[in-house]
Amino acid sequence: MYRIGVDIGGTNIAFGLLDEKLDILSASSIPFVPGGQATATAIAGQIGALLQENDLQENEIAGIGLAVPGSVNYRTSMVIDAYNLGFHDLPLRDMVQAGFPGIPVRLANDADAATLAELHKGALRGYRTAAMYTLGTGVGGGLILGGRLFLGGLGNGGEMGHMPLVDGGEPCTCGLKGCVESYCSATALIRDAKRAMLENKASSLWELAGQDPVNLDAKIVIDAAKAGDKTALAVFHAYVGHLGSAIVGLLHVLDLEKVAIGGGVSGAGDFLLAPLQEDVHRKCFFRSHGEVVLAATGNQAGIIGAAMLDGDQGL
Amino acid sequence: MYRIGVDIGGTNIAFGLLDEKLDILSASSIPFVPGGQATATAIAGQIGALLQENDLQENEIAGIGLAVPGSVNYRTSMVIDAYNLGFHDLPLRDMVQAGFPGIPVRLANDADAATLAELHKGALRGYRTAAMYTLGTGVGGGLILGGRLFLGGLGNGGEMGHMPLVDGGEPCTCGLKGCVESYCSATALIRDAKRAMLENKASSLWELAGQDPVNLDAKIVIDAAKAGDKTALAVFHAYVGHLGSAIVGLLHVLDLEKVAIGGGVSGAGDFLLAPLQEDVHRKCFFRSHGEVVLAATGNQAGIIGAAMLDGDQGL
Repeated sequence: MYRIGVDIGGTNIAFGLLDEKLDILSASSIPFVPGGQATATAIAGQIGALLQENDLQENEIAGIGLAVPGSVNYRTSMVIDAYNLGFHDLPLRDMVQAGFPGIPVRLANDADAATLAELHKGALRGYRTAAMYTLGTGVGGGLILGGRLFLGGLGNGGEMGHMPLVDGGEPCTCGLKGCVESYCSATALIRDAKRAMLENKASSLWELAGQDPVNLDAKIVIDAAKAGDKTALAVFHAYVGHLGSAIVGLLHVLDLEKVAIGGGVSGAGDFLLAPLQEDVHRKCFFRSHGEVVLAATGNQAGIIGAAMLDGDQGL
Repeated sequence: MYRIGVDIGGTNIAFGLLDEKLDILSASSIPFVPGGQATATAIAGQIGALLQENDLQENEIAGIGLAVPGSVNYRTSMVIDAYNLGFHDLPLRDMVQAGFPGIPVRLANDADAATLAELHKGALRGYRTAAMYTLGTGVGGGLILGGRLFLGGLGNGGEMGHMPLVDGGEPCTCGLKGCVESYCSATALIRDAKRAMLENKASSLWELAGQDPVNLDAKIVIDAAKAGDKTALAVFHAYVGHLGSAIVGLLHVLDLEKVAIGGGVSGAGDFLLAPLQEDVHRKCFFRSHGEVVLAATGNQAGIIGAAMLDGDQGL
């Protein structure tokens, strides 16, 4: 049996045909088509083409999975809000399902899909109690509990980026103040670097950003810190400390075996991982605690994870 | 079949014989005996007496459960640290088990036991995804996931009191700064009331505490707030806001169906519950979210929960 994973982004929609080893046999991509029904039609068309090109019948496909950057109701398989895609209360699963009556179609939040990819083919393989954070524009996350993707008790799934970290602190995109996301996203790293460079005109961040803070991105901040710029290093260390506290909080609550870190900021690699592991080890009071590692499935995470949405996940 | 629950505290050890309806048929209590082996011997002696008085054989008892105020390793059933009892790395389960070879003996942290009591006989009955906080000297907590008591991924269990709430904030008993416990325990409520009364000599807290802040306790603060004392009200409102944020964090991560509040501070009843529910509803961004309720099993929670430790809990 084969599986099909679809990773829906605001720019492109990526498709993958997977074999039983979860290797991607065939990958393709189309530009994002807005509109909901138009999106579903475009997705169904590309899946149809994928089946035809590979000479596959519906009964050879175990499942089609859709990953979206937004909130999903796991009871109804509707997209609640995917702001970047312009989707609100969209029955996207049902719309794609209509085109393939013989193949189960499933829908998940993209961070949950990435977590499932790590479980089946990445850094969380073989663990029963684990988590993944995606550190990008926001902070997404997914939980593995009882060896399966946790979809929440009421179908809302989990939003690890919106645990309090500094209650009443920095404003968060969700409207609250001080969520993990408002300290541990790439956006937060950039915000703090901008503030710091404005207070230190000698920082190399000025040169790297072409003399304009608006040009800062996470990679520039990380590169400057790697190169030893004191302003960037101070910002990066504070970032690591906040991320460490967030992870320790999750370890204390769920006694996880493993925590994988993915998303843009994780591109810093060992420069992030080594001090983060040290921070977590110093703060976590369990004698033996779960390890923090880098995610392994990279930009295939959405496709692989979506393809692995089995319908039997959840507690 | 019957069950026996033992709730071990620093002052007394309470025993209960439960029937299949989880009603306590026979309750007794002995003063706490320190020393580890001496404690186990005293417990075994009292259980033996309980069996004899009720004319019961070992094969009529489904299990004996022990609840301790401290950290437990759920893989080895050892007490890691129970500071109030002076227990460190104590194989208490095995020590009691030795006296009753025919009855399975189990061990749990007291907040986990209380959570199990709420699951089987209290406010969490029938839920698969739920939590309980005990708001006392510290903040304990337990999770129900997949309909069973969650014991953690590595046997450490969960410590919901040690999620960050204000990272870097008030010092916590665990050595970290800004944990939920350092803002939501009775101890934190009293600390903040002491600070506030020192800044407001007109507060009725002075009179209620016999003119000495050292006499403050949680009940005095709550009573003063209920009576409309502005200083006490401000402290209590800030406390509710912090507890609300902690609960919302857990709802966002685990999408719980229900959260029960027990322990000393929950004695405030609706005076706590009503503003807490409002705070949680205002902050939680799920369209439909779990409800906060008062725990129902009260001071029988330890005995009932310990008796219900079935050996099959955990994911």
